[in-house]
Amino acid sequence: MSVTLADIEAARRVIEGVVLRTPMLPAPKLSALTGAEVYVKYENLQVTNSFKDRGALVKLASLSEADRKRGVITMSAGNHAQAVAYHAARLGIPATIVMPVTTPFVKTAATRSHGAEVVLYGESVSEAQARCEEIQVQRGLLLVHPYDDRQIIAGQGTVALEMLEDKPDLDVLVFPIGGGGLIAGNAVAGRAKNPKIEIVGAEAALYPSVWNALRGDNRPLGGPTLAEGIAVKNVGKMTLPIIRDLVAEIILVGEAELERAVNAYLTLQKTMAEGAGAAGLAAMLTKPERFKGRKVGLVLCGGNIDPRVLASIMVRELEREDRIVSFRLTIPDQPGVLGNIATRIGGLGANILEVDHRRLFLDVPAKGAKLDVTLETRDAAHAEEIMAALAADGYAPLRLEAVAAME
Amino acid sequence: MSVTLADIEAARRVIEGVVLRTPMLPAPKLSALTGAEVYVKYENLQVTNSFKDRGALVKLASLSEADRKRGVITMSAGNHAQAVAYHAARLGIPATIVMPVTTPFVKTAATRSHGAEVVLYGESVSEAQARCEEIQVQRGLLLVHPYDDRQIIAGQGTVALEMLEDKPDLDVLVFPIGGGGLIAGNAVAGRAKNPKIEIVGAEAALYPSVWNALRGDNRPLGGPTLAEGIAVKNVGKMTLPIIRDLVAEIILVGEAELERAVNAYLTLQKTMAEGAGAAGLAAMLTKPERFKGRKVGLVLCGGNIDPRVLASIMVRELEREDRIVSFRLTIPDQPGVLGNIATRIGGLGANILEVDHRRLFLDVPAKGAKLDVTLETRDAAHAEEIMAALAADGYAPLRLEAVAAME
Repeated sequence: MSVTLADIEAARRVIEGVVLRTPMLPAPKLSALTGAEVYVKYENLQVTNSFKDRGALVKLASLSEADRKRGVITMSAGNHAQAVAYHAARLGIPATIVMPVTTPFVKTAATRSHGAEVVLYGESVSEAQARCEEIQVQRGLLLVHPYDDRQIIAGQGTVALEMLEDKPDLDVLVFPIGGGGLIAGNAVAGRAKNPKIEIVGAEAALYPSVWNALRGDNRPLGGPTLAEGIAVKNVGKMTLPIIRDLVAEIILVGEAELERAVNAYLTLQKTMAEGAGAAGLAAMLTKPERFKGRKVGLVLCGGNIDPRVLASIMVRELEREDRIVSFRLTIPDQPGVLGNIATRIGGLGANILEVDHRRLFLDVPAKGAKLDVTLETRDAAHAEEIMAALAADGYAPLRLEAVAAME
Repeated sequence: MSVTLADIEAARRVIEGVVLRTPMLPAPKLSALTGAEVYVKYENLQVTNSFKDRGALVKLASLSEADRKRGVITMSAGNHAQAVAYHAARLGIPATIVMPVTTPFVKTAATRSHGAEVVLYGESVSEAQARCEEIQVQRGLLLVHPYDDRQIIAGQGTVALEMLEDKPDLDVLVFPIGGGGLIAGNAVAGRAKNPKIEIVGAEAALYPSVWNALRGDNRPLGGPTLAEGIAVKNVGKMTLPIIRDLVAEIILVGEAELERAVNAYLTLQKTMAEGAGAAGLAAMLTKPERFKGRKVGLVLCGGNIDPRVLASIMVRELEREDRIVSFRLTIPDQPGVLGNIATRIGGLGANILEVDHRRLFLDVPAKGAKLDVTLETRDAAHAEEIMAALAADGYAPLRLEAVAAME
């Protein structure tokens, strides 16, 4: 094995007192949701809000004085960039981070705020990767690979050491898989500490690169995923053999499960998970029978989700629960009708969020109009009750999903 | 003193192994924001997502066998209700919770899910309170008061014991004040463990009941606050004398600071705070000079915020940062213009969130139209750049805030 328990224990000594020993806590509401006994390790509480702090520090601390002077470079649109920038600044090592020009501003800003030089280049990760390699050679910098690196893998593996110290009798550990650094390091640590423990990987169904490599399968890779942090097309040369040896199963998680998992962390655990950070929970939701009744350790490995995406996930969930509903009403185009309807809805205990008044639709009688209302209700039964009341008043309400399906 | 350190240490033994010993972690980003050295105690990770678990269990565990059989009753629209319901169910004690009919569905559902009988009554807390007292007498139940109770106060005081065990050299502890149970218990515990420590209270500026009582002031009480969990009009008879003796200062926090604090917890710490739960941080934002350079322990005391409110706070913050902006454009009413504008905006790297096309405004030339577009931009400079480009193209863009101010 390219990385050993001794490497990981050495990494643990390097990060001690610098990287947070994050809490792992029982999550009874997630246990009720999944039927397992769930424990969550809150890596989103790290300074740069992901586990990447661990490997980045271990790698940077391992550099010779000469390498530190020359400086480091890496390519990343995400958490690895921030972790390298943060720990390089702490250690006084100049850092250059190449990011695709499409990287969200909040991430380039966070990386710059740690004092790194950010080079924006290319539309895609592979274009940025090529530019990164050019600059590395031109300037003689040291490349900090996000996962195919012994020190990085050893650093990430410290997560499992802490989890098993806190709760030695966990049955299963679940790790998201992007390049495989997190699961590889922790598979080595977890299985060395407890040979009976099962290691399960969660890979985005849109990016099944390790799945394909292990099974000789040929599923397509690509597409927009909520778990952009694990949307990796290239399998790690160092990580793949470790995964092949030590990982019991890889579960592919779809976008719906990722979204449900992010929402469950938020509403049940009151904590923010990015898509990749919630992939382990998404795997449990995808295949609950695999975990039922067992003690499962989940790593909430990152919390860097765009606030607008998170807001939209929360609102979509309310819509799914019929706590936000939209109706299209047909109304006589005369004064006072809007007031009557608003009063009626208010009297039924719902809250009007939006009103859209359309006079120009061709399917309306000349003297009529359409009114779209979006309401906040208590639940699906309450939404039904309001719809029935509006129908009794003659407004012929149609749920807007139904309208959209008809058009 | 009605509650002593010995009471709180006894309470600690009662909750040990049942109520979570929540983590307290350094929060470097909040430290950077406030200029202090900030530590956060994550009480939002408790099973019912607030510190109320502590007092509720201590009180219920103290009941005689006869009282347990008769059952308990309480009145609460919020966290106390859930905590009493949860621990009563665990201990096999029948629980009745009276809630105002206006209580959000998610809170009544959560309380029912723990097996309590929920009685919905009255438009306000005081009407529900009256009903609660009626039922209590009729059925001979035991009232579990949310704060004016020795066991409750002792239970809440266990928070400070854990904080000072983890970090004995904290200079200041900040606690939100509603009825005062949390701050009273923790002022006793904190000052007994370290007589030099300062206890600071954070009260909602709309509900300055303890402020008024301590200063003989007469500020008005009422209004919709984000911190509904501490919107309390009645000062506690047991808590007030403790607060008077042991609390160094009460800081009144406005709605803007509460909103900023909720958003800071979310975006910087990746954790969900309800308004009341963020009041301590809001106090630091209100009076930063008081905390500068000192070691401050904050209690994130609750995470039960409505997802729709949280989503709206996140979007409003993006608007404040000009990462979501709206323009009104004047356009010739001819085919292809919308396509041209959308292409132009896309080419400048912004994302179109909403388009609203208005042909009927009277201030438009007969052949013209107005187009409102809402965009997601990288930052304020990017928004300016797009506005300048649209102006150069002849669309006379107006920021919609400016339009609203003119109308």
